[in-house]
Amino acid sequence: MTVPSVVPLAHLNGKVEKHANGTTNGNGSHEPLHVLTGSEALRRIREGSLTVEAYARALLNRIQAHDAAVKAWAYLDPALVLEQARALDSIPEKARGPLHGLPIGVKDAIYTKDMPTEHNSEIYKGSFPQVDSASIMILREAGALIFGRVVLKGKTVTTEFAAITIGPKTMNPHSPHEIRSPGGSSSGSAAGVADGQIPVALATQTGGSTIRPASYNGIYCIKPTWNAVSREGQKLYSLLLDTLGWYGRSVSDLVLLADIFSLEDDEPSTFNGIRGAKFAVCKTNNWHKASDATRQALAKAAALLKAHGAIVEDLELPPSFEPLTDWYLTVLETDGATTFLPEHRVARSKLHESLAVFIDKPAYTRKQTLAAQDGIAALRPEFDAIASQYDAVLTPSAVDEAPYGLEYTGDAVFCADWTALHVPVVNVPGFQGPSGMPVGVSLVAPRFRDRHLLRVAEDVGKIFEFEGGWKSNIL
Amino acid sequence: MTVPSVVPLAHLNGKVEKHANGTTNGNGSHEPLHVLTGSEALRRIREGSLTVEAYARALLNRIQAHDAAVKAWAYLDPALVLEQARALDSIPEKARGPLHGLPIGVKDAIYTKDMPTEHNSEIYKGSFPQVDSASIMILREAGALIFGRVVLKGKTVTTEFAAITIGPKTMNPHSPHEIRSPGGSSSGSAAGVADGQIPVALATQTGGSTIRPASYNGIYCIKPTWNAVSREGQKLYSLLLDTLGWYGRSVSDLVLLADIFSLEDDEPSTFNGIRGAKFAVCKTNNWHKASDATRQALAKAAALLKAHGAIVEDLELPPSFEPLTDWYLTVLETDGATTFLPEHRVARSKLHESLAVFIDKPAYTRKQTLAAQDGIAALRPEFDAIASQYDAVLTPSAVDEAPYGLEYTGDAVFCADWTALHVPVVNVPGFQGPSGMPVGVSLVAPRFRDRHLLRVAEDVGKIFEFEGGWKSNIL
Repeated sequence: MTVPSVVPLAHLNGKVEKHANGTTNGNGSHEPLHVLTGSEALRRIREGSLTVEAYARALLNRIQAHDAAVKAWAYLDPALVLEQARALDSIPEKARGPLHGLPIGVKDAIYTKDMPTEHNSEIYKGSFPQVDSASIMILREAGALIFGRVVLKGKTVTTEFAAITIGPKTMNPHSPHEIRSPGGSSSGSAAGVADGQIPVALATQTGGSTIRPASYNGIYCIKPTWNAVSREGQKLYSLLLDTLGWYGRSVSDLVLLADIFSLEDDEPSTFNGIRGAKFAVCKTNNWHKASDATRQALAKAAALLKAHGAIVEDLELPPSFEPLTDWYLTVLETDGATTFLPEHRVARSKLHESLAVFIDKPAYTRKQTLAAQDGIAALRPEFDAIASQYDAVLTPSAVDEAPYGLEYTGDAVFCADWTALHVPVVNVPGFQGPSGMPVGVSLVAPRFRDRHLLRVAEDVGKIFEFEGGWKSNIL
Repeated sequence: MTVPSVVPLAHLNGKVEKHANGTTNGNGSHEPLHVLTGSEALRRIREGSLTVEAYARALLNRIQAHDAAVKAWAYLDPALVLEQARALDSIPEKARGPLHGLPIGVKDAIYTKDMPTEHNSEIYKGSFPQVDSASIMILREAGALIFGRVVLKGKTVTTEFAAITIGPKTMNPHSPHEIRSPGGSSSGSAAGVADGQIPVALATQTGGSTIRPASYNGIYCIKPTWNAVSREGQKLYSLLLDTLGWYGRSVSDLVLLADIFSLEDDEPSTFNGIRGAKFAVCKTNNWHKASDATRQALAKAAALLKAHGAIVEDLELPPSFEPLTDWYLTVLETDGATTFLPEHRVARSKLHESLAVFIDKPAYTRKQTLAAQDGIAALRPEFDAIASQYDAVLTPSAVDEAPYGLEYTGDAVFCADWTALHVPVVNVPGFQGPSGMPVGVSLVAPRFRDRHLLRVAEDVGKIFEFEGGWKSNIL
């Protein structure tokens, strides 16, 4: 297998031919192709009015124009993208997969056989595992165009893996005048999707690494039920917490991947529209950390659903849930100590202090670790039973709008409990903070009710997007 | 990075020079080097009476002489081994790691950056992920000599991954006249260690893939507490069950790797010898499957410990444990459906029927899956509390002696419950079945009492090995 050279985006100029420059498309219309949702692009490819190559060129042009301002990509080889796009175009119609031609950005923590995977870590500089992760195997087989690798956190030596909350190079595309974080660790995935550089991107979540960036970037995402989709081939942080997720600019794009990953509930959803549906608002035990932006978004979300005929109740979790966030942290740190032992041994000095400390100074005994693991395990069916009484539980996605600067990717505290409980979560955009930045709200359902949750999110999204008060002005 | 060609063992002839032919050693004595435990070899290397290269040559010679009869290796490049051995010899004494020169066999389901990893599957033919697994990173850094890849199950197209119970090519070295299975799926690891081809080898266990082959091959192994050692870079079957384990011909060799993997209990063991120690004999709910060989081994184990002054009680687990084996199977199959979806999509025809069926005809609903996951999770602390009353729990390692032929690697039923409970298990050899084949007994402790368990196994092993009635006649 030949190793393609890394093509820095600075060298993109001249590599992308201009005849599909993103302002015309195969349809002859002048709507830019990069604003299409993945579902709409697939429809056009399927009906023959758009080629995979033309669509790929339009996205490459968008990336070329915006990369300096967003810096979403860790690895992108335009020649490889176009070569694969042409190969897809040459496949006879009958042999095409269900995602034929869908461009997908891959977080730089998930193996792709034709590109290096560096985890944004000095330790893995130049690392090139020539295998696909489980998710990439499935997506390729379905005809997806594995576009490039999007930034996992920053590019400085002080950040690495999907684990640190400081230092991304990627910038939030919604704040061109003042630098803001896109969140992390799925920084590039969220920013790239928000900016129309890619319709769909893979993310991962151990705490709030998928949901929080979606809120900061005004896009949809799903963090499915833990272990419903194989995590094989994605950098490990915590066995009990890591979950593969994905971003899109519509619920139907989330559904595309849910289909292909065989994300299935036992029974079809009985949800039948917002009118008469039952929602809970769960402020969680971390509500004191919620900013006004978050408080107002959650209140408006509840008010809008009520105005559309839904029943909306407050949900206070029982006292048994009080230790949940602490238990989450215990599991995170002790799993982290197991996971990062190899890097600690091989290159302690290149491992960020916040990870090295798990091994240098373990904060928890084995007994405390087990109490946390077992305690969370007992809460999972308890929460499922509570959440089953509602069509969805509404809860904050993040503490605030996206933080200023690139030093800090924000607090994951409103995501951690749900990650620990293994339940599916969808971020729905539509609200805005005091400075005009997007703010999302999370919808939560019991484990393995992912399809039901997506069905609910579709209707909720229509309301929040149109009446929530925030609209993207970059697409 | 250059890709070394696979050197089939048939081509070994002439590649291994004869001046270290395994019957002389650096000490000038005539004890063959391949019979040394890893600990003893390390001691000699440390004191300067044995070079890594001489030791490696002796093992290569042993392999060359016995490979036709055992077939333990999937990939072995003698030139690479000797090159790395010389490189280790050239490291100044002060810069040497704690496992300096320890040869280690790696199950063909665990990534090694300098050798292909094919999972014994047509689907992964030629697959060469150029990264080390977490365990290999740690072992290399400690100075271990990553020797080669040992067979994961058979080489026929009908077996793959660590998941099938039919068809290994590897043969049990203790039965030269009638072909018997070494067990599986860690077939080559166990047979290679038993035959003196390698002192230590890595294994994995999802059901009984580490413990059962140890029993069939008359060697020691540990399956540590789940998630105490990182499983990153080893082929996934079940997130909730997969555990890295390792083989050796002495407890001290198991301890070598326990040290390097930082396998630590909260407190030092209070075990102070067999006299006065308290053991439980747990026949489990699957006792009706135990052969006479297994029944006699367990009875003799209990009798020997009693004769040496231990207190030995029968332990019947409470009724809450009755569904445990069924729950184990539910978790196994539903995790398997998630894990093998990529291979099913890419190459259904190359996936064994027994795995493909998880996806073609799911046997369990999501509700049943969660009941099993949550049910097992609730039993874990319950078992820990019970097991804490004893120095160790004695239980069968396998249903019988190693099966005849190579079609069937044996029943894992006596291992499955402990795998599900995440507890550490050590196989102690020493007993024999009616046809003279080795039979082991498992020692079990609460989660994260691995070091305590190894301490107990050391003393128990001395008794079982010397008085149990079986001795290896191939070393």
